[in-house]
Amino acid sequence: MTMIPPGLLPEGLSDRLPPQAEASARVTRTVLDTVARHGFERVMPPLAEFEETLASRLKSAQPQDLLRVIDPVSQRTLALRPDMTAQVGRIAATRMANAARPLRLSYAGSVIRLKASQLRPERERMQVGAELIGADSVAAATEIVTVTIEALQAAGVKGITIDFTLPDLIDTLAAGHMPLSDTEKEAVRTELDAKDAGALAALGERAAAYLPLIEATGPFHAAMDRLEAWSAAHGGALDDRLKGLRAIAKPIDWDIRLTLDPTERHGFEYQSWFGFSVFADGFIGEIGRGGSYAIMRADGSEEAATGFSLYPDPLVDAGFGMVEPRRLFLPLGHDAARAAALRGEGWQSVAALSDSDDGSALRCTHWLDGPEPRPYGC
Amino acid sequence: MTMIPPGLLPEGLSDRLPPQAEASARVTRTVLDTVARHGFERVMPPLAEFEETLASRLKSAQPQDLLRVIDPVSQRTLALRPDMTAQVGRIAATRMANAARPLRLSYAGSVIRLKASQLRPERERMQVGAELIGADSVAAATEIVTVTIEALQAAGVKGITIDFTLPDLIDTLAAGHMPLSDTEKEAVRTELDAKDAGALAALGERAAAYLPLIEATGPFHAAMDRLEAWSAAHGGALDDRLKGLRAIAKPIDWDIRLTLDPTERHGFEYQSWFGFSVFADGFIGEIGRGGSYAIMRADGSEEAATGFSLYPDPLVDAGFGMVEPRRLFLPLGHDAARAAALRGEGWQSVAALSDSDDGSALRCTHWLDGPEPRPYGC
Repeated sequence: MTMIPPGLLPEGLSDRLPPQAEASARVTRTVLDTVARHGFERVMPPLAEFEETLASRLKSAQPQDLLRVIDPVSQRTLALRPDMTAQVGRIAATRMANAARPLRLSYAGSVIRLKASQLRPERERMQVGAELIGADSVAAATEIVTVTIEALQAAGVKGITIDFTLPDLIDTLAAGHMPLSDTEKEAVRTELDAKDAGALAALGERAAAYLPLIEATGPFHAAMDRLEAWSAAHGGALDDRLKGLRAIAKPIDWDIRLTLDPTERHGFEYQSWFGFSVFADGFIGEIGRGGSYAIMRADGSEEAATGFSLYPDPLVDAGFGMVEPRRLFLPLGHDAARAAALRGEGWQSVAALSDSDDGSALRCTHWLDGPEPRPYGC
Repeated sequence: MTMIPPGLLPEGLSDRLPPQAEASARVTRTVLDTVARHGFERVMPPLAEFEETLASRLKSAQPQDLLRVIDPVSQRTLALRPDMTAQVGRIAATRMANAARPLRLSYAGSVIRLKASQLRPERERMQVGAELIGADSVAAATEIVTVTIEALQAAGVKGITIDFTLPDLIDTLAAGHMPLSDTEKEAVRTELDAKDAGALAALGERAAAYLPLIEATGPFHAAMDRLEAWSAAHGGALDDRLKGLRAIAKPIDWDIRLTLDPTERHGFEYQSWFGFSVFADGFIGEIGRGGSYAIMRADGSEEAATGFSLYPDPLVDAGFGMVEPRRLFLPLGHDAARAAALRGEGWQSVAALSDSDDGSALRCTHWLDGPEPRPYGC
């Protein structure tokens, strides 16, 4: 093998440098602080677990996403976590099984996947989120959506869109009011994913009954009106779900754009009745997502949960979270007490260590002239 | 292989639960915020790197400490970082090679070692620290020691002791004023480590000349007095070093205990002229450490640096960093605007999702009675 150049990192692994690293930490902190104010308490699961137990709880990630480690100590295969929600579920189901419900937990940390994708060139990402365990009610979903929006707004994200979905909608209808065989169901799903009305109609009469779902996509209230009319015409098949969605949307501020894509399922495969994606102006792709799901208890039964998670780094890359600090150069012989007082007022100080230190080159915005900060260039 | 119980984690990897996880995050934040006020800027290196490049820069960790990952993507062996200072050095030497010096960088993240030890049962630990790159002067050391103390005090650590050492002292003396062969030097070091005066004297006249160093250990000023007298009697062999140490100690507050152990080298093997360990009352072992060292530039030359790092979790286990939050239960139908205002005043709120939610079981300290928080049990 050839020598690896000293600065080269493996594909998909990279350094975050100033000021992006600081901005990334700031976004993470803001999300954690926001959810903490709503009673979510921090957990810190380990970076790696036994592959077997981790894989059994994976939700948005798949076993083939795992980067594996042969552990000489346990003589087992470990896997680095590709996602933290599975770990939070494990904690809720085992060590915190007896904690009162609903249990509100938050988390932040690096997650690693085996492979990058074109959409996600990074194999390691920071993930931050909150999970409400013991409830998947409308009230739980409302809290999670509200907290998600509050956290993103606190992080400076503007032009937020929440896109609602009903992940198990097709399963529910196919098993009830609008029967489909498993084969038909897969075909219907494929055409709904492609939003291909012609192909859906061509699948036959039972499949064609699902056609109105394609049109019930787009701006929330118009799409809901259509779905509600359709539900009423089908014996109220979706009334409970739609009533729930209306209740979740109700407390959301008017400046948040709401959309509905009732049959969207990409990435929501593991979710139960409710899911949502978050988008923002000037940001390509999804910022974060959440919804309701089930956690496996230690006895094999299921416990309802609702949560959200997001990835701060793409937000930072899109320019969110950046703050220009007031950075103050302290010349040799400066007044240390005055400098400490200014740090207390929010200044970052950079103390000269020798005559040759150059405050301007060290990206200071000001220098301490006697007791007063003076801007460079004035 | 037998099935792994669902809650079991690999040896040395564990979950941090509330409230310890929150306390750990709080200590880390406090350290990062303190160093940020002194101009240190955050970097975030990746969790894993090519084993070859990471191992070449390891300082306090050894290649045998590395937990390895076979990476199917790069077809190379990666290693999880056992320490972040090596990564910060790499960043300074490569991507930030052209940034103005002195370069102040901070970092925080998980580090993983292959094996736990009796002293360190955890294989994964949070590490946080700051590195001042481009200087190992007395001024640089003074800044690092001062900032370390300020960060720990801000994190609530009481009864701090700083233990100074001169890591390359024996090398310097053996190569200069008090010559020793390599064999003699190793023997002298062993006996100095053991503080065994008898065995040191028995090594012969040249080794016995090092005897006074054993006595120059303990409370800082008394030990310095002895060392200074000894240096004066040996042609000023150590005068520069001792003058430097006095200057570093001078601005340190009277309530910090200072000690000197001039020949201590455990864990300081990679450090140059200056090192220090931090201890605290009620805390077994070392909280953190720092000192001067050299970073390898891309062209193979060396650049001076000074830094410190510490591990928040043992501090949390010793009871530091814990804060009792005011936790407010919000009954169904509470005034949402009032709840938001109280969150703005620092309350954590826990909103009822159903009639059966029990604020007291959810560890709330208060509940919202109309507009007013009332303590439980009153």
